[in-house]
Formats: sequence, C-alpha cells, structure tokens
Amino acid sequence: MTNRAWHLKSRPQGLPTMDNFELKPLDDRALADGEVRVRNGWLSVDPYMRGRMNDVKSYVPPFEVGAPMEGGAVGKVVESRSPHFAEGETVFHMMGWREEAVAAAERFNKVPPLPVADQEWLGNLGLTGATAYFGLLRVAQAKEGDIVFVSAAAGAVGSAVVQIAKAKGMTVIGSAGGAEKVAWVEALGADAAIDYKAEPVVQGLQRAAPKGIDVYFDNVGGEHLDAAFAAARNNARFAICGMIESYNSGSGHAFRYIMRVIAARIMLKGFIYTDYLPEMGDFYRDMGGWVASGKVKGRETVRDGIEAAPEAFLDLFRGGNIGKMLVKL
Amino acid sequence: MTNRAWHLKSRPQGLPTMDNFELKPLDDRALADGEVRVRNGWLSVDPYMRGRMNDVKSYVPPFEVGAPMEGGAVGKVVESRSPHFAEGETVFHMMGWREEAVAAAERFNKVPPLPVADQEWLGNLGLTGATAYFGLLRVAQAKEGDIVFVSAAAGAVGSAVVQIAKAKGMTVIGSAGGAEKVAWVEALGADAAIDYKAEPVVQGLQRAAPKGIDVYFDNVGGEHLDAAFAAARNNARFAICGMIESYNSGSGHAFRYIMRVIAARIMLKGFIYTDYLPEMGDFYRDMGGWVASGKVKGRETVRDGIEAAPEAFLDLFRGGNIGKMLVKL
Repeated sequence: MTNRAWHLKSRPQGLPTMDNFELKPLDDRALADGEVRVRNGWLSVDPYMRGRMNDVKSYVPPFEVGAPMEGGAVGKVVESRSPHFAEGETVFHMMGWREEAVAAAERFNKVPPLPVADQEWLGNLGLTGATAYFGLLRVAQAKEGDIVFVSAAAGAVGSAVVQIAKAKGMTVIGSAGGAEKVAWVEALGADAAIDYKAEPVVQGLQRAAPKGIDVYFDNVGGEHLDAAFAAARNNARFAICGMIESYNSGSGHAFRYIMRVIAARIMLKGFIYTDYLPEMGDFYRDMGGWVASGKVKGRETVRDGIEAAPEAFLDLFRGGNIGKMLVKL
Repeated sequence: MTNRAWHLKSRPQGLPTMDNFELKPLDDRALADGEVRVRNGWLSVDPYMRGRMNDVKSYVPPFEVGAPMEGGAVGKVVESRSPHFAEGETVFHMMGWREEAVAAAERFNKVPPLPVADQEWLGNLGLTGATAYFGLLRVAQAKEGDIVFVSAAAGAVGSAVVQIAKAKGMTVIGSAGGAEKVAWVEALGADAAIDYKAEPVVQGLQRAAPKGIDVYFDNVGGEHLDAAFAAARNNARFAICGMIESYNSGSGHAFRYIMRVIAARIMLKGFIYTDYLPEMGDFYRDMGGWVASGKVKGRETVRDGIEAAPEAFLDLFRGGNIGKMLVKL
C-alpha cells in the first residue's frame, strides 16, 4: 500500500496552480504506544484551505512549505496501539491530503452511530453541515418566517443552508452561477434562485425578494454581500462564513450599499463552526434527523484517487462543483 | 420677532452648496388648542442630516423640497395652549433650522432638572451624548479593560466616546485630522491619537494599538473601518454610528481587510440612538453624573444667527468643528 501525501511546495500568489503542490511518499514507520494508523477513504477539499496556503496567522495556522497539507478526512482504523480504537472503526480527523494518517489517538474522532455513508461525515454531518447549521441558526439567529438569502447556494455549505432553512419554515433565496446550479438550488426547495452570471445580484434580489431579506448567509463576499446590504430589512442579521470571491485576488470590493448597515441596523458577524463545538449534540440530533428523513439531502462531486486532490481543490474556485467536493481514495 | 426657517430648495448632488438652501419666513399663526410656541435658542447641525437631503427612504423620512428642514433644537416656551407646558420652560425638540417652533405639545420634551447650560441638551446630554453612550456600551458592549478605537474623535460624538470609555476604565485610541484636533483628543484623556492626515490609518493603528483593538466606534467608514478590520482582535465588536466619508461621494470604499471578519469573528452592527429610548434613564443617570463631575466635558464650535446654519452644517464635512457644532440664535 502506498502512503503518499500532498505537500505544499510553494506559496501561491493569487489562484494556486499545480506547481504549488507536490505528491510525495511519507516515511513508513511503526506505531508508538497510544498511536493509531488510519487508511483514508475520503478527503475533503474546502475553500478555506486557500487561506492556509498564505503565510498569515489566522484562526488556523498556515500550512508549512515542504510539509504535508491538512484537511478533513474519513477513514478506517487499520492498526491501533490505543485502547480507545479498534481495527475497522470509522473515524473522522483533520489529516487529509494523504492516503494514510498516523498519529496519537486524540487526533481521531469516532463517528456517531448513525446509518449513513462514510463520506456524509465530511458533508452534511461533518464540517460542511455544522457550518451551515450554526451559521444560520446561531450566528444569524434565523427563525421561522424569516426571508433568508444564501450565496453559493449550490455549493456544499450553501445547499445545506437552503435545506435547513426550509426545514425550519423560512423563505429562502439562493444564488448560484449558471442554469444547472440554479436548477439544483430550486430542486432543493428554494423559493427563488438567482443566477449571478445572468444578472447583477442587486437586481436579482430585488426581483426574488421584493420585501427585502432578514438574514444573509455569506459564502462569497463582494458583490453578493453588497447586494445583501441593499436588500436588508430592519434588524437583518448576516452570518459571514466565507468570501471566496476575494480568497485569491486579495483585492477589495468597492461596497456601494454598506452605509445601509446604519439605517437598517444590520448585524454582521464572522464565525467558524468550531466556535460551536460545545453544541455539536444539538447539531447531530437535528441534522441526523433531517438526513435520516431525507429533509436534507447531499449531493457530491467526486474525484477519484489521491492524484486528483489539487485539481478538485482548484475546481472550487472555478465553480466546478455542485454540492460537496470530495476525493475518493 | 422674525420667524424664518431654512428650507431645502433642491436636493444636493454630492457635497451640498448654499444653492440647496433657502431662508424664508414661516407663516405667523395663532396657536390651536393643545399647541405650544417655542423660541429656539440653539440649533444642532449633524452629519446625519445629509442623508435626509436625498430622496431615499431611511430610518427618518427625507426632507421635502420646498419645506422647512428639521433637526435637534433647544428653546424656551413663549406661549402655551397646553396644560403640560408653561411659559419660560426649556424644551428639546426636533424642529430646528428655524427661529420659532409651533406644534402640538407632544412634539416637545422638557429637559431633565440638571444644572447645565441649555446647549448641553444638544451635546453630551442630548442626541450626541446618547449616541456615544448607547453605541459604546450597548451596541459594542465595551467593558473595562477593552482597547477601544474611535474615529472622528475630536467631533461631537467621538469626543464623548473617548471620555465615556476613559470613565469606564478602557484604553482609548482616537483618530482625528490635524495637529490641533489630535491635541484635543489627547487632552480628553485618550491613551493615543492618530492623525489620519499625517499617516495611513492602518499604520497609525499598528503603532498606537500593537496588540489590536476590541472595540471600534465608527463615525467615518471607508479607510478607518478597513483599518479597524485589520487591527481587530478575536471577537471584536464594531458599533457603526456614521460613515461621513461616504455621505457625499456615494462611492464605495474598496475594503482590503474585510475578510478578517471571519478569522477574528468580528461583530459589526449599525444603530441609531433612538433604538435605546427606553433606556434613557440609565443615560441621564450616568452621563448626568459624568458631566456634573467634569469627567465628561463638552467643547463647542458655535456659529451665530440663523443665517449661519447652512455653513455650519457644511463645515462638518470640511472638518471645521472641534466638539459639537452649534448655531446660537
């Protein structure tokens, strides 16, 4: 069995290229006492990883040049020298971008006993779903009857937001790029969808939400955020999850409507789902129920083999995925 | 006695000019039952009034072209047909920009029984002080030990924020334009001051707050807000009171650091002091005490006579005031 890992070869300027990545074997070594060996079955690639490629202190430390990269992964225990893990158990952990993870037992988490496919622990029941759940319900405090706008609504987090909002009795407007994605957003149950490639977002939102919006779940920043400022009703709440529009460019959007923050008393807050780890029990209860009942459905864009990981990651910035982008090993 | 009022002659494009204003006599009329006549002694001019000159629905309706303008004023009752008001009483009301206000008794408020000069009810004990108090303590939830940054710190609201923050045991950094204003901000007790005309705000803030900021009180928007994004510590709170930089231009600032909202979990909220009217009792108790003890001091830039009102207003956008800009009739 090979054990290769993608290493950060150099820090990208702007949009990363294949030259920034290098696939190299990891040293084969015996387990120390208390360690576990996990064969990864699925790797997650997520937009936030772009930030870790810069040499900037953020909420997670930057990737080191020359070292293996990290990210969400699900795998099976193949060898254990810890009393807490047995061979064959399914675990979630953050040592992705590689075929095999070897580390102290504390760095692995057993998945809860729910009858779902392994990759669901990277999607609706993993960091993707938790980000949608806590952002919508805790950060933006969205409630029944609210009019909710979500950008990148065909993406992994956005499509979960659409479905959670519908499960909770909200009106939902989603934006996405292109007819295929818009159709998928509508199929998820959104009350209206905006194709941001076909019309300015401000205009689309005026049509889709003539009364304005109470909540904005931001995955994109820039033009979408500005349109949300324009459409906000009094006391609107914005959960700022991501700003993919700016991750590579680094340049700033010129906001035309930001002054509406004052008149409409908009509340805007950034978050990371890990801020809510103490409340994961609520998440597993609610989201587990919705996934089991089919109220929240996943859709996956799957790439095969460790070799495909960087291209899968780069595709996130080209709009190449519908739903959760995964690499299957 | 003349009774003239400034009318909005035409809606300004960009920075207003004298051509947008017209001073005309108001009709003289006898009081109806329940009405009160007040001779204004002091008029307030405030940056927010610029927004009311546009034909845009906001938290207060736009001024009508051809009609007298409105704004904070303090005066004495000179005639009353209401049992609630007696001749000679001092009242605060929103029928400024004119020499005499005639209206139903409900539109006037008696000032609380505190031994202060009349114009204080437009300054630290009026909408200026209430804006500073509620923005800092309620919206941004600033508390002892916090590092607070405030823009336009030599202005009416900003100088109140500096002093309230010091009275509450916070570290305060104020920004202002030019040496005279910076000296005044330091004299108010600020721990550090930034001259935004002498250096980029981002750079000034790195020097003045090397550990970053917990709270930002925004009167300016644009470059100042961007610098606050850059300097924000985790869980920083921004109270958005005004964005004077954009009131006339209407063009958007290109924010370079807005993505830090996510990593630092910044909370940002717009507000108007009237959101906190039910809590005015707290404000009068605290601010009344600070004003009486000299912990919060006012400074005024006074223009004489009703004729001076538009120029006083326009000077707000040229940085022509230190402290509260007032028109004395």
